[in-house]
Amino acid sequence: MQVDVIASVNEARSDDFINKTVVVIDVLRATSTIVTALEFGCAGVIPVETVSQALKLQESGMLLGGERFCKKILGFDLGNSPVEYMHRDLTEKRIIITTTNGTRALQKTHKAANILAGSVLNARSCAEAAIQLKRDIVLVCAGTQDDFSLEDGLCAGLIADELCELSGEAIALNDLGTAMQAAYRHVKDCLETVILESANGKKLSKMGLKEDVIYCCRKNRYQTVPFMHEQMMLPFEGSKTGSRSYK
Amino acid sequence: MQVDVIASVNEARSDDFINKTVVVIDVLRATSTIVTALEFGCAGVIPVETVSQALKLQESGMLLGGERFCKKILGFDLGNSPVEYMHRDLTEKRIIITTTNGTRALQKTHKAANILAGSVLNARSCAEAAIQLKRDIVLVCAGTQDDFSLEDGLCAGLIADELCELSGEAIALNDLGTAMQAAYRHVKDCLETVILESANGKKLSKMGLKEDVIYCCRKNRYQTVPFMHEQMMLPFEGSKTGSRSYK
Repeated sequence: MQVDVIASVNEARSDDFINKTVVVIDVLRATSTIVTALEFGCAGVIPVETVSQALKLQESGMLLGGERFCKKILGFDLGNSPVEYMHRDLTEKRIIITTTNGTRALQKTHKAANILAGSVLNARSCAEAAIQLKRDIVLVCAGTQDDFSLEDGLCAGLIADELCELSGEAIALNDLGTAMQAAYRHVKDCLETVILESANGKKLSKMGLKEDVIYCCRKNRYQTVPFMHEQMMLPFEGSKTGSRSYK
Repeated sequence: MQVDVIASVNEARSDDFINKTVVVIDVLRATSTIVTALEFGCAGVIPVETVSQALKLQESGMLLGGERFCKKILGFDLGNSPVEYMHRDLTEKRIIITTTNGTRALQKTHKAANILAGSVLNARSCAEAAIQLKRDIVLVCAGTQDDFSLEDGLCAGLIADELCELSGEAIALNDLGTAMQAAYRHVKDCLETVILESANGKKLSKMGLKEDVIYCCRKNRYQTVPFMHEQMMLPFEGSKTGSRSYK
């Protein structure tokens, strides 16, 4: 099984995803937020690229979530803070979400056979789901404005490491995957400290969102794996022949 | 002092280099070859982008070196094998060199205040020279056809590590720099094995050039630091006030 890591959504060519399982990673904070929303009972998350798409798609009973410049969008119900999502009653609600990098990456991977949302929070379950889907895997770091983001790279390294642990020698990593796995292994016991010192970690902390950063560094806290089904992210249920099922 | 690592020459914007010291890294094999050529007495290396530029610039007594598809160019005196350069008498000769990725990266950084060629072979001396030059530093991984190459990333991590060791807390790394330093630290005791398993390591080994790959993994073997002066790479002599001088 080939596992490729791509450094930022800018480098992603949508044709490269055909027939593959893609895991989109935006640790700070879009994919951590989507994982949290589904974990806390939300019925489904619809990622869209622009604010106007979000407004256009909204139907009765749907919530609007997202950010621009790390802040909640005017008139929206929710921002992009996973901690905020934990404290709201999302049961059975559908949420339309738009963020600067993460939801764009989710859109750009639409040609993939399967699209999952990965984060530190659900890394192991995400690796298990990707293996169950039995295709080559691309771990897409969302990055920030087309640049590499440390937290996404380290999370890709973590998921690659989980994949290797689960599948052993059956996994072949590309060069960036090997580098990210090595980087993750080097910092795995101080992941929170390192991510707090990353560009986005520092920016969010400065804006009073340090709690979000710390929350997003909690490894394998959840088993929920968001899986794209007809433009909506739903909890992955596992293949019918799989050895375990997902919430 | 800010130290940024850039993943491939494709991501390099030439305006980002203004007023900076740029270290171009193409471990397999352009910058390892240039370091070796100067170490073995060559009078200067002129990197050019195309074969026709090389032919046009050639004057009496100059040698032509380089590769396309990892092989020596028809009619050229030398290929791009550092081991080959060690065994030739290059004393006082000037060499025009063109390679697929490394020389293009050297060309693309022409707006920088200073341009150095970095490799595993001269990592520490390269870090020392960059610090002597007292400017912000950009470590540019040449990469392969616009993709990230493991050996260049690990070498950037090694040079970043040397910079941190020499300057301590005065160094601020960008996110990719932090990741590459962590990756390098994780594999530093098995650098040769890891690089032999990289995409380029495997490709060159398969072509019978394993000796080149092993040679290029020898850490801090040389003190020579190629420094661009009027389109020609010469050994860096150090600043007049510097504490050491270079060959």
